[in-house]
Amino acid sequence: MQMANKIYTMAIVGYGGMGSYHTKLIEPVDNIQVTGVFDINKDRMKAAAEKGYKAYESLDELLADSTVDIVLIATPNDVHRDLAISSLRAGKHVICEKPVTITSGELQDIMAVQQETNRVFTVHQNRRWDEDFLTIKHLIDTKQIGETFHLESRVQGANGIPGDWRQVKAPGGGMLLDWGVHLLDQLLLITDSKIDSVWTELSFILGTEVDDGFTSFIKFKDGLTALIEVGTTNYVKLPRWYVKGTEGSAILRDWDLSGEIVRNNPDVAKVEPKPIKAGQGLTKTMAPPSEESTLKLPLEKPPVPEQSFYENFIAAIEGTSPQLVKNEEALRVLRLIEAIFESAEKRAVLNDLNL
Amino acid sequence: MQMANKIYTMAIVGYGGMGSYHTKLIEPVDNIQVTGVFDINKDRMKAAAEKGYKAYESLDELLADSTVDIVLIATPNDVHRDLAISSLRAGKHVICEKPVTITSGELQDIMAVQQETNRVFTVHQNRRWDEDFLTIKHLIDTKQIGETFHLESRVQGANGIPGDWRQVKAPGGGMLLDWGVHLLDQLLLITDSKIDSVWTELSFILGTEVDDGFTSFIKFKDGLTALIEVGTTNYVKLPRWYVKGTEGSAILRDWDLSGEIVRNNPDVAKVEPKPIKAGQGLTKTMAPPSEESTLKLPLEKPPVPEQSFYENFIAAIEGTSPQLVKNEEALRVLRLIEAIFESAEKRAVLNDLNL
Repeated sequence: MQMANKIYTMAIVGYGGMGSYHTKLIEPVDNIQVTGVFDINKDRMKAAAEKGYKAYESLDELLADSTVDIVLIATPNDVHRDLAISSLRAGKHVICEKPVTITSGELQDIMAVQQETNRVFTVHQNRRWDEDFLTIKHLIDTKQIGETFHLESRVQGANGIPGDWRQVKAPGGGMLLDWGVHLLDQLLLITDSKIDSVWTELSFILGTEVDDGFTSFIKFKDGLTALIEVGTTNYVKLPRWYVKGTEGSAILRDWDLSGEIVRNNPDVAKVEPKPIKAGQGLTKTMAPPSEESTLKLPLEKPPVPEQSFYENFIAAIEGTSPQLVKNEEALRVLRLIEAIFESAEKRAVLNDLNL
Repeated sequence: MQMANKIYTMAIVGYGGMGSYHTKLIEPVDNIQVTGVFDINKDRMKAAAEKGYKAYESLDELLADSTVDIVLIATPNDVHRDLAISSLRAGKHVICEKPVTITSGELQDIMAVQQETNRVFTVHQNRRWDEDFLTIKHLIDTKQIGETFHLESRVQGANGIPGDWRQVKAPGGGMLLDWGVHLLDQLLLITDSKIDSVWTELSFILGTEVDDGFTSFIKFKDGLTALIEVGTTNYVKLPRWYVKGTEGSAILRDWDLSGEIVRNNPDVAKVEPKPIKAGQGLTKTMAPPSEESTLKLPLEKPPVPEQSFYENFIAAIEGTSPQLVKNEEALRVLRLIEAIFESAEKRAVLNDLNL
């Protein structure tokens, strides 16, 4: 039996925007084939049938189908837990859309069943493969601006919260659980340090019952600080990434990966900058660093990850690679999200978290 | 007697960077003439004498000189209170460099003596006249992006804290008391609302005993929020101003006043933006606003202030105009600075301030 040649059959639960997007993501993946779909919405079932997918009458029918190896969950967030547990118990491997669950307790329930059933369960934290993130992580790992002590990670749009359930609290709507979970997942991969404190301001400008964005300041035990922001009321964007190190700073402006590094030139002694006219006064403090003693460098392209999300998922099933998106990591992100919500509700800094 | 033709005689106490800079600021002012200087540093006294100024042997000699109408205080901050009180009691009008004092209590002492002596006492908050600030204040006042609900005001440099006493705590060093006092003074002129809460992180990256910068999030009773930042370890700058309103956003990048407004076009119904490829995913939320339904506009030039700082100071002495930089305003800024220090020390959000 050649495991490497096995084609894994996948059924999708929830054929909305993300569910149908996954079928496109999987198309070029050789050893996964999407064969069926279940959705409680009849129109979506019809759309799936028209694409040639088997439209299951019920979730039970899907789970009872022994030809299905993998269940992909792309429903609203409040049913992830139950769907994941039923799928694992039915002997399926499971990919779940993010946020994996709304609370850390729900994820712990899934993790207990995963242990019991010994199936692979993973979260689709696809933005670990985003090149902007990989570029910044590479910059930090290779100390291109010395020791990084502060970073800012932002996504900003002017289009409000996406429609339907994402504007409602019960199914797990709001931007902290949406884009927030990506930015926080990325942040926690940047340092090995534990989190010491969290401060947060949620935004409710659009009048929805869930947050339409947030600003959170997170401090790690090793001194690294991070400002994480998601906004949906921003007609002009601030840079996607802004990083400060002991030898320089770096900026990455947008999805186009434009940006640069400005850092001390190790071959030139520091040159005092000249004062500049700034408004009504002169300032040396806020003058740009001297061009003689600094270097402006392009952002370095990061190494290409060895495996894609799906390649790694199959390798984890086959036992040839460890699972990249670990459930313990997803659990930590959810605990951080709970701390962020708590700090906002209490209007307080949460200190000494050791998270 | 034609009051308008009187030439006021000024003596400067503290002939360092700011003291000597004032002589240049005053040069084009018709009705003020700098005649003398006192400094505890002999080299500076020599430099002043070479410029043709009377070099007083002592502060007492300066204060006893009945030809001196105005004393300008440009010393380290810890002696502002005593110098101001002595000068007022000697019958002088007083201009004091910022921060006016280190604590609000010291300023209250000065204000009591000002009342008693009925001389004019004012703080040189010259950055109220900065065109970047005036541009943003005009944008907000004229509701060019609707109701402003959030603003960010930053100054960032890579040159550390300026030399000598500004790196030391006792004389009132640190960046919160330096550039911070300007940004906070400007902020408090933007809204009539009281402050509800303050959160702050001070930066100590450079290892000085005073802050080398700070990030503070200030929330007003009317809902306006402000992120105020000063940094001296930033090799790349974020924009000087970033403002969000109910109809759009505005950015002002630097001292060159470059920037723009992006706002809803009132003549076009909102057009849904198209999803964009962002890293590993598609996003409509973080797509730029539709070009059809938004306008990109230049920042409008603000009206020119009727009086300069010095013109207003003379008008206040002569009773023809109210004093623009009011001592009560300076007192509120100092109370805010005290709240900012307190929030940083306690690692807490200070709520329900009513400041």
